[in-house]
Amino acid sequence: MTRHGRKSPPLLQFALVLALAAPAAHAQRTVPFRGNIPVAPRGIVVPPLPDEPVEYQTAEGQDIRVVVVTRGLERPWSMAFLPDGGMLITERGGQLRHFRGGTLDPDPVDGVPEVRAQGLGGLMDIALHPAFQDNAWVYLTYSQPFEDRSTLALARGRWTGDALEGVEDIFVADPGTGGASRIAFGLDGTLYMTTGGGGAQDANTLGGKVLRLTDEGDVPTDNPFVGVEGSRPEVYTLGHRNSIGLAVHPGTGSVWQNENGPNGGDEINILQPGGNYGWPLISLGRTYPGPWQSEAFWRDGMLQPVVYWMPSIAVSGMAFYTGDALPLWKGDVFVGGLRVGEIPGTGRLERILFNEDMEELRRESLLVDMRQRIRDVRQGPDELLYLLTDEDDGALLRIEPGD
Amino acid sequence: MTRHGRKSPPLLQFALVLALAAPAAHAQRTVPFRGNIPVAPRGIVVPPLPDEPVEYQTAEGQDIRVVVVTRGLERPWSMAFLPDGGMLITERGGQLRHFRGGTLDPDPVDGVPEVRAQGLGGLMDIALHPAFQDNAWVYLTYSQPFEDRSTLALARGRWTGDALEGVEDIFVADPGTGGASRIAFGLDGTLYMTTGGGGAQDANTLGGKVLRLTDEGDVPTDNPFVGVEGSRPEVYTLGHRNSIGLAVHPGTGSVWQNENGPNGGDEINILQPGGNYGWPLISLGRTYPGPWQSEAFWRDGMLQPVVYWMPSIAVSGMAFYTGDALPLWKGDVFVGGLRVGEIPGTGRLERILFNEDMEELRRESLLVDMRQRIRDVRQGPDELLYLLTDEDDGALLRIEPGD
Repeated sequence: MTRHGRKSPPLLQFALVLALAAPAAHAQRTVPFRGNIPVAPRGIVVPPLPDEPVEYQTAEGQDIRVVVVTRGLERPWSMAFLPDGGMLITERGGQLRHFRGGTLDPDPVDGVPEVRAQGLGGLMDIALHPAFQDNAWVYLTYSQPFEDRSTLALARGRWTGDALEGVEDIFVADPGTGGASRIAFGLDGTLYMTTGGGGAQDANTLGGKVLRLTDEGDVPTDNPFVGVEGSRPEVYTLGHRNSIGLAVHPGTGSVWQNENGPNGGDEINILQPGGNYGWPLISLGRTYPGPWQSEAFWRDGMLQPVVYWMPSIAVSGMAFYTGDALPLWKGDVFVGGLRVGEIPGTGRLERILFNEDMEELRRESLLVDMRQRIRDVRQGPDELLYLLTDEDDGALLRIEPGD
Repeated sequence: MTRHGRKSPPLLQFALVLALAAPAAHAQRTVPFRGNIPVAPRGIVVPPLPDEPVEYQTAEGQDIRVVVVTRGLERPWSMAFLPDGGMLITERGGQLRHFRGGTLDPDPVDGVPEVRAQGLGGLMDIALHPAFQDNAWVYLTYSQPFEDRSTLALARGRWTGDALEGVEDIFVADPGTGGASRIAFGLDGTLYMTTGGGGAQDANTLGGKVLRLTDEGDVPTDNPFVGVEGSRPEVYTLGHRNSIGLAVHPGTGSVWQNENGPNGGDEINILQPGGNYGWPLISLGRTYPGPWQSEAFWRDGMLQPVVYWMPSIAVSGMAFYTGDALPLWKGDVFVGGLRVGEIPGTGRLERILFNEDMEELRRESLLVDMRQRIRDVRQGPDELLYLLTDEDDGALLRIEPGD
């Protein structure tokens, strides 16, 4: 970048004289847009991930070390821990990767359905059945090609140790239901599934919802809208915007979800059956071009978030940390952040500390200087934290206690 | 910090077995409190300010260089630019410092009233009269000793070139009116003054308000509550919490104020005469111990902020940048941040980009890795940005365009 010179050519000097004579305007720059979204400013170059582990002090005194476990992942989206110590990692473009014995298998796993990686979709979440050790079932969410768009789908297959076999769709949303989808098994064995796209306020559609299904992709008989006319029985909650974070508290079974506001207003919500979380009628944020999304931040009958962000950090995967390996973080909630607004290089991992009533006391942004788009965060069987970076040369990171 | 060992002594192994057998609890740590405020976590050590200038890339492509202009300031609070190129800088403990010819005069300036530096108060803001070149009037806000507490006061004196002479209080709030106070001259020559402490909703008290005074400390006849029974005529707006940011747009005269939420909910407000900004009845944040400050984020008749923060960054001094020296920042608003929550080492400078309707498009946190508590930010006559760090070994920083 060249330094802005202080000498002006004669014509500009003349213009400056005129400008000084007149009362100063707002002096707002005109910001370029693409459609209704500001063009991302490109001033920050994201540094490469370090080759060596990085040590950090953190607010609570929990020293940590961040290690790159493996690189070479292409826009990884989610991960699952296999009982044998290996991992399965989805890549948004449609590939499932197997990480075992410290190595990322260069060949993608066979058996994954064809996906359409477009917009927010592609191959997305992966989850193992709670009784995986018995049944070997692996669940995937993905965007099924549909005309020139896609439809959210939930597929299930059996893990052979090397491949997925017998993969079939067990639930397919209405054609064209778009967006991204995160899944999580409840403690009762049902499966929660987020959906994107429009129609969030309409209980008779599947978009902008959290669905609750059986592990077969059917409707649990105790779903809140079963038997309610004008509602789809798969719907668990409504009024959601793009939602790629879902976590079930391992102790209480409480289902937590998060979603992205466009220009502020990212939220974490505690899901109550049948609850309406307000999007697009109420939001804590602004629209991309600037005006507030809604006239009021809140409306009777709609549920308020338990945590929210202004500005947005593009919340992504979420996890409850319940381990002892990072003892000063025990009980905290972790959320990935892809970026602040649309500014590249502003991704991070967010840590939230709650009191015993799950009311937020404080929040801490971690790994800010790494500037990575964090797509997922999970607690591993070793009680360490694992992260995925949503980059073309993406990585699996591990957070260990520091020295 | 020692690494958490994975081997447990026998007694602990027994306890772990029991714990594994029982359903996991919430596993929330108990967070120590002092009174109703969580004890600040001490894990982060704030690095010393660098000796050499630091170059940064920033989001908009505005490369910058941050220079330490001078150190040796003790908890500096505010600054004013003298026409001769020097500066006056207040220190919260009660001293006024003169910076001239590149040097910080070791002797404090004579003439400053006695202050009580306690809680949020002390010697605080400084502002030059709009016609300073003619009248040499300097205004100070400070906490006047009162019993074992203090009272907010506004003093004025004449700058001789070396000292303040003839300093007298021109406005003293009701005894015991506490908190911090920032001042700013409007384009019409009136003076706006923030006040802290309780009673924010009561128009008949001076606490938790923005006052509007004449340059003599009297009441302008067009103040919104003049002649309104049960109201104090000095009051311009009400319903504010701790407010140490005030800026008047040099082009439009629009008066912007900011204030701190306890646990989330920092705000920037555009002041409208007579407006009620809601504190403590409505807030976008939580209380220090966790519960939401208010049941709803919004209430009829109360004014919503133009910008807000969740989590809090402890907003401080604020400035409109209208210069050309940092051309890719022209039109942006800058706000200092002292820290996020009560976590040391999380101070920063915040930059906010607006569209032509002054609706926020995006926000950027700057100087995050310097970890300094930023108390004030101002545009200098050279169109560069000047910052003060609220530290025992505080500094005046300058932001220049980078190479």
